[in-house]
Amino acid sequence: MKKSIEYVEGNKDKFLQELFDLIRIPSISSIAEHKPDMLRMAEALKTNLLAAGVDKAEVMPSEGNPVVYAEKLIDPTKPTILVYGHYDVMPIDPIELWESKPFEPEIRDGKIYARGADDDKGQSFMHIKAFEAMVSTGDLPVNVKFMIEGEEEIGSPSLGKWCAEHKEMLKADTILVSDTGMIASDIPSITTGLRGLSYVEVKVTGPNKDLHSGIFGGAVANPANELAKLIASLTDENNHITIPGFYDDVIVVSEEERAEMAKAPFDIEEYKKALGIKEVYGEKGFSTNERTGIRPSLDVNGIWSGYIGEGAKTVLPSVAHAKISMRLVPNQDNETISRLIKTHLESIAPDYIKVEVTPLHGGQAYVSPITMPAYKAAEKAYSYTFNKKPVPTRSGGSIPIVSTFEKVLGIKSILIGFGLESDAIHSPNENYPLFNFYKGIETIIYFYNYFNEELSK
Amino acid sequence: MKKSIEYVEGNKDKFLQELFDLIRIPSISSIAEHKPDMLRMAEALKTNLLAAGVDKAEVMPSEGNPVVYAEKLIDPTKPTILVYGHYDVMPIDPIELWESKPFEPEIRDGKIYARGADDDKGQSFMHIKAFEAMVSTGDLPVNVKFMIEGEEEIGSPSLGKWCAEHKEMLKADTILVSDTGMIASDIPSITTGLRGLSYVEVKVTGPNKDLHSGIFGGAVANPANELAKLIASLTDENNHITIPGFYDDVIVVSEEERAEMAKAPFDIEEYKKALGIKEVYGEKGFSTNERTGIRPSLDVNGIWSGYIGEGAKTVLPSVAHAKISMRLVPNQDNETISRLIKTHLESIAPDYIKVEVTPLHGGQAYVSPITMPAYKAAEKAYSYTFNKKPVPTRSGGSIPIVSTFEKVLGIKSILIGFGLESDAIHSPNENYPLFNFYKGIETIIYFYNYFNEELSK
Repeated sequence: MKKSIEYVEGNKDKFLQELFDLIRIPSISSIAEHKPDMLRMAEALKTNLLAAGVDKAEVMPSEGNPVVYAEKLIDPTKPTILVYGHYDVMPIDPIELWESKPFEPEIRDGKIYARGADDDKGQSFMHIKAFEAMVSTGDLPVNVKFMIEGEEEIGSPSLGKWCAEHKEMLKADTILVSDTGMIASDIPSITTGLRGLSYVEVKVTGPNKDLHSGIFGGAVANPANELAKLIASLTDENNHITIPGFYDDVIVVSEEERAEMAKAPFDIEEYKKALGIKEVYGEKGFSTNERTGIRPSLDVNGIWSGYIGEGAKTVLPSVAHAKISMRLVPNQDNETISRLIKTHLESIAPDYIKVEVTPLHGGQAYVSPITMPAYKAAEKAYSYTFNKKPVPTRSGGSIPIVSTFEKVLGIKSILIGFGLESDAIHSPNENYPLFNFYKGIETIIYFYNYFNEELSK
Repeated sequence: MKKSIEYVEGNKDKFLQELFDLIRIPSISSIAEHKPDMLRMAEALKTNLLAAGVDKAEVMPSEGNPVVYAEKLIDPTKPTILVYGHYDVMPIDPIELWESKPFEPEIRDGKIYARGADDDKGQSFMHIKAFEAMVSTGDLPVNVKFMIEGEEEIGSPSLGKWCAEHKEMLKADTILVSDTGMIASDIPSITTGLRGLSYVEVKVTGPNKDLHSGIFGGAVANPANELAKLIASLTDENNHITIPGFYDDVIVVSEEERAEMAKAPFDIEEYKKALGIKEVYGEKGFSTNERTGIRPSLDVNGIWSGYIGEGAKTVLPSVAHAKISMRLVPNQDNETISRLIKTHLESIAPDYIKVEVTPLHGGQAYVSPITMPAYKAAEKAYSYTFNKKPVPTRSGGSIPIVSTFEKVLGIKSILIGFGLESDAIHSPNENYPLFNFYKGIETIIYFYNYFNEELSK
């Protein structure tokens, strides 16, 4: 392993320049006009993987954006690691809040600033470079497969089917994913649970055209006011979600497990300071970490109606829209939840408005047991590179495809993410510390070796 | 008067072409980049007034957009009419809903389609042309002054002060305003009451940046959800407004007067059909016309937060905004109401968010007594040209400056508006029927003569 680590040391600049070239391609999956960028991005990854030393690499069609698949099979008796990542990124608005151009990476204060610097170009790329280091130095201990998709940020609508169609090709002992975070640069952690997601769009229609709010105000229902009432009604005074049946399938986490979770280092004052808030908020009876780790939540991700420009316009709008998502916990089915919110909102709509709910995407929650060999290997790798045993944590985020992998391919994933909360993924000024980038590559190299050892026992 | 009417008949096309030239100047007062258009528009009006036969016309500076002033003083012993209008227009979004270009007037089905066709370029222009007809034919019976401002759609912030500075110059027996509507083309009406307006912008701030809704959702207050709760809390189950003190100064209209108002022709089924709604809506215990005529109301005019583009973005937004306006009835003070909503919303804001309320503009409600000479003159004019006695109505809209005129100049206004509900003012596809345009000019000519008669009694 020593030679691989030296290879990383000697190629730090090269790695960075290569990553920057990938970041410069604005591969935003949710915006149709970026379609050509998705294809350019997939081709660039293929080229990069071939240069890193895979036996073959292909841009493979799916029903949506293509999947980049690559492999290097060294010995059928050796374990196989399937690396998953995604090359698509989130939109960049509000653009005015970026301090540098989102697709022109810049290094400031030891961090790479760019859309995708962390999520997930930066993190996916660490795997390619760890692989390159091991191949170049003759150190690769296992078979490796890469599957890098271009639709994660829109809920991976095509990958489940694509996996089912390539089940044989994708056979592996574990799926290795770096698309999550760690507690802090000096507190390594491994994500053992992910929340599921149900994401819907709500449209409230009132009059058939925008009206003058003076002439009609008070006599015709205002869709923006009505949408606000609907949203407000979705939670009660204890911040419980009021959709009938919403909690039916939630497994109550035992007091014991909650006590164990409470031991994870967490400084509420630091947390509030970092977010610039006076007080935290959430479901009554649960701690901040529990609220994101083991409890579902409901958030408005976007809302718009009427006049949103400069100055005052006295309009009674015809329509109002909201994007609403719910994070789900294990055993809650995302399709059931999407159906429940749709039925609920459409059924409580009063006569004077029309409410339509359209599910946009979703995914199941996931749990990764700490007893599996991949977890143990990861634990050893972090313990070596960070000189500290990693903490198992449950993340509030969702990687819907991870539960699909388990269902379709029958393979558990191990989530070793190197991001930090301060990386501002999905937000303006996304960044990724160089420390985490290089330390991650090192940790991955150790993981390969410990995983080989674990499976050879 | 016969010669004046004939003059109108003979110049219909000329009038239209002149109006179209004025409409083509996109004088949107609420958008700073249109500032040059405001000046162009004022100059164009001055030119038009001079051509119509005024003795002098001036583009006069104010603290905001200039005021176009013109006059023709024929005889100090004769009554003086001060015509008020505005040359600014509303913004044009949502632009995609316009069937023709907003600033390129088109005639379809006997209507002028364009922003400002009715409000208020079309209506202001009728006065200039009625004046031109009387001057050209030697028929002008009174002194006339014109005061056409460029800030009505943003609440006339400068005109009050401007009037105070030119009180002597503006002396008149009545102020004649056409910036309102009538019940139907065959049911003439005169607006005897206008609601006041308090318009504020609300900003709710949560975390100091947009967050990932998975990692933070459920543990950090979401400003969009919180804004929805604030808005929902502003009305109760009877659609009463809940702001403490909001109704304190509302004068309860007597049962007798309500019974009188209820006699105005109104077809609720037609109303619902025209708006494409299944049910009307509003404050419990009041009819549709009462809800807009004699009761205050509260509407969200715009709301925005988070991701409002295509697809799904799992963001927990940092801020949420709403534009909220309240229509007020006589005796409610708009500044008091703006203060009440600000105090209320800011004081009920929980610790985990910050709420800021900024008053944008406002105006007082107004009542025009049906006993004043100008009302009687208008009643006679309509009775002659429409062959039907006009109905006195209270409009839900606001022309804040009308109450300022009364306060500053001590002159009552008479509101003879020729617009229809279907004119879609402030909305896409604003239009103005040619019938109303020409009939309005005729009615104004008769008004001048009857007003002269009334004051000579």
